[in-house]
Amino acid sequence: MAIKVTVWHEFRHEKTHERVLEIYPGGMHACIRDFLSDCEDMEVHIVTLDDPDQGLPDSVLNDTDVLLWWGHMAHSEVKDELVERVKNRVYNDGMGFLPIHSAHHSKPFRAILGTTGNLAWGRDQKAIVWNLNPTHPIAAGIPQHFELFEELYAEPFFIPKPDDLIFGTWYEDGNILRGGCTFTRGLGKIFYFHPGHEFCESLHNPYVQQIIKNAIRWAAPTKIGEGMENKCIHQTEAIVR
Amino acid sequence: MAIKVTVWHEFRHEKTHERVLEIYPGGMHACIRDFLSDCEDMEVHIVTLDDPDQGLPDSVLNDTDVLLWWGHMAHSEVKDELVERVKNRVYNDGMGFLPIHSAHHSKPFRAILGTTGNLAWGRDQKAIVWNLNPTHPIAAGIPQHFELFEELYAEPFFIPKPDDLIFGTWYEDGNILRGGCTFTRGLGKIFYFHPGHEFCESLHNPYVQQIIKNAIRWAAPTKIGEGMENKCIHQTEAIVR
Amino acid sequence: MAIKVTVWHEFRHEKTHERVLEIYPGGMHACIRDFLSDCEDMEVHIVTLDDPDQGLPDSVLNDTDVLLWWGHMAHSEVKDELVERVKNRVYNDGMGFLPIHSAHHSKPFRAILGTTGNLAWGRDQKAIVWNLNPTHPIAAGIPQHFELFEELYAEPFFIPKPDDLIFGTWYEDGNILRGGCTFTRGLGKIFYFHPGHEFCESLHNPYVQQIIKNAIRWAAPTKIGEGMENKCIHQTEAIVR
Amino acid sequence: MAIKVTVWHEFRHEKTHERVLEIYPGGMHACIRDFLSDCEDMEVHIVTLDDPDQGLPDSVLNDTDVLLWWGHMAHSEVKDELVERVKNRVYNDGMGFLPIHSAHHSKPFRAILGTTGNLAWGRDQKAIVWNLNPTHPIAAGIPQHFELFEELYAEPFFIPKPDDLIFGTWYEDGNILRGGCTFTRGLGKIFYFHPGHEFCESLHNPYVQQIIKNAIRWAAPTKIGEGMENKCIHQTEAIVR
Repeated sequence: MAIKVTVWHEFRHEKTHERVLEIYPGGMHACIRDFLSDCEDMEVHIVTLDDPDQGLPDSVLNDTDVLLWWGHMAHSEVKDELVERVKNRVYNDGMGFLPIHSAHHSKPFRAILGTTGNLAWGRDQKAIVWNLNPTHPIAAGIPQHFELFEELYAEPFFIPKPDDLIFGTWYEDGNILRGGCTFTRGLGKIFYFHPGHEFCESLHNPYVQQIIKNAIRWAAPTKIGEGMENKCIHQTEAIVR
Repeated sequence: MAIKVTVWHEFRHEKTHERVLEIYPGGMHACIRDFLSDCEDMEVHIVTLDDPDQGLPDSVLNDTDVLLWWGHMAHSEVKDELVERVKNRVYNDGMGFLPIHSAHHSKPFRAILGTTGNLAWGRDQKAIVWNLNPTHPIAAGIPQHFELFEELYAEPFFIPKPDDLIFGTWYEDGNILRGGCTFTRGLGKIFYFHPGHEFCESLHNPYVQQIIKNAIRWAAPTKIGEGMENKCIHQTEAIVR
Repeated sequence: MAIKVTVWHEFRHEKTHERVLEIYPGGMHACIRDFLSDCEDMEVHIVTLDDPDQGLPDSVLNDTDVLLWWGHMAHSEVKDELVERVKNRVYNDGMGFLPIHSAHHSKPFRAILGTTGNLAWGRDQKAIVWNLNPTHPIAAGIPQHFELFEELYAEPFFIPKPDDLIFGTWYEDGNILRGGCTFTRGLGKIFYFHPGHEFCESLHNPYVQQIIKNAIRWAAPTKIGEGMENKCIHQTEAIVR
Repeated sequence: MAIKVTVWHEFRHEKTHERVLEIYPGGMHACIRDFLSDCEDMEVHIVTLDDPDQGLPDSVLNDTDVLLWWGHMAHSEVKDELVERVKNRVYNDGMGFLPIHSAHHSKPFRAILGTTGNLAWGRDQKAIVWNLNPTHPIAAGIPQHFELFEELYAEPFFIPKPDDLIFGTWYEDGNILRGGCTFTRGLGKIFYFHPGHEFCESLHNPYVQQIIKNAIRWAAPTKIGEGMENKCIHQTEAIVR
């Protein structure tokens, strides 16, 4: 059965900055949908902040296996009740969550992980992504390193200790970032990946695309066994007698 | 300089159940203060939910190095603004946070870690705490195992992957628990420890007391180096030139 | 392409203890081969210590994707050069390694992980395996807990900190064990799982069988990207210019 | 009681390369001893490969709480029986082990951790060490970043997943390294730190010195509780009755 992927995109920069639309005609979400189109094991759906119910009515959210999230200038507009519903989907239903780039400061990222998501940032520049975890499925087929031109997103990056650190990024200006990190929360898997600045072309990079494909497959819900629901259980009888 | 320890206690069960006061005369917080009294490196202060500002006005909270938290029946009464202030103290100032027993479901535990804190629970019974991490300072001097009579708190326990798993607990009824776990969030260190049911005597157990002493010393704020504040930094110049 | 699975079995107890052969007609390795026979994505091969080249000439070892290892009374007979070859296959070629039960004390387990593998052990008894990591592919479909009758293998278990702790086991006698643990070494993935005493019937348990199937799929080599060989690289030119 | 620190140094480069002696008069081990001399909680002892018993007769090794190890050109001369004794001290007695720089390829590093220790290496160059773990005692007081001029030691670095990643290093040539990592093995704590090339001046850097001091204090043996010896225990009676 196909993995149901929903790409949530703020879709504001494209409306105010012509340059962003030149790089990503139709918007960044359209770019992601397009490069996922050769994945026969995925059904991809794109939604935006300005859609009804901010793009994620229950009918969409509850039919999503993996949610990509790109937001930046309008983080504060995302309603707290939506954040709560996204968090509950991850915690309780095992929906995968893939915050991309500036989503490090989005409300769902902060609430789901328990973190400020603070980091250092600066000018767009040459960046090199290093593969630190070649055995991990998210790194499958990814070379030792590849080059990007990206916005500086760098340490100190205030995240909980990652379950696995998959990629580390070098920047021309002298900085580094734990730039590709996995986490688990409740029944859900989370992968943060830093490339994706609206004025850069990273989402056209074939390795970035491959990593996102790998991550979607990795983050798809695991088949949960009996009794593993995320709830408080009052146990009235002994397991053994 | 002494570690400033604040013991926050809900202090409600003692008022409604005589048996609790028999086990813990003066309240559970008084018991903790008393067994910490031989620690010359600590200054201990006790506060309760029904104190002004729910016991933690800024004058107290901001003068606290390590905060112990015991709550149960009144989790929902704790004000969201207090939760926010506690979280910020941990994330931004490195205050240590030691949630004890039923604090697994407290608002600060959930918000700071990013979790539901759900677990299985049941009748009070024989429990054996196993030392799984003998090299960790929280386990210093703690034997291979020791016995308690405790409320069943058991897996599935929905917590983020612990940084370190220090203790695992066996229960007579056939259950186990990852019962002593460390986490870091922002600049703060967190240790969850499951013993401390109000109707049990665990806080009188010398090993439980030693573990709490060890944990306070471990969770005391690390001296943070220059530039490690938990904030977003706009870097205007290259680190190297 | 099918995962090439080699089951290495000491196959000595079956020759000296009739009871073992009653439980596992044809040997424990035959049992494993048989329950894997419904996995169309696997090609399973069984070998034993008393085969030529101790069952693992290069022609077999180098054609193996995942190696299961069961040894006990004859650990010391395994030649150091074989241990070295197994280790190199894991480290350098990414062969998965699944040490089962008493393989915790086998030479390859110790050399590959860097550990003594010491633990506490005792009489066969009721044991309950708890699922501690429901999102992990090795736990897919496995219920909250299931019961076994097994040899006591318990803490303190001297292993490096697991990458992931998947299962924890409760024992009637009051003990617990981190009983299902993952590790990575070089390009290889390792999963230790404790059930499988020769006088118990655990390998007939459907959950144990499912876990071994899951683990084989998880431990199969990841497709390694360019430049990720496990070797020392002398870099003569700068990555960036 | 003072921490007994033994600095094991290969001490060969100083004899063949005048430049090394200019940077480190008396040898690199003398430099380490000297900058540790203001630590009143340490007793420091220096030994070298060419001393009797390769510097580590049992009388010295068994009286050592924390062992620093610097080796490079003569890794292969270190006797296997010494490697075994060092490993056993770490595993069984909790001796701390601090491999510095080229010790990533030393026999004890490989045997203790279970790894090849392979990495990429190249010319001496500008390097920036980033503090990735401000709450860890090894990072206490260490700023966000500091600059070195060091030999390139870079990813891919084939080490087991670190317990904690404390420092990450940026290099002018476009590389990065997980350059300061902790591990535990048996009862012992290990910290690998990459600076210390014989032709560079890193050991004179005050932050490098502070990190080594912090690491010695962190790696000193924890007081082990009763029953936590690293051995196989045959348990003849139930823990509970």
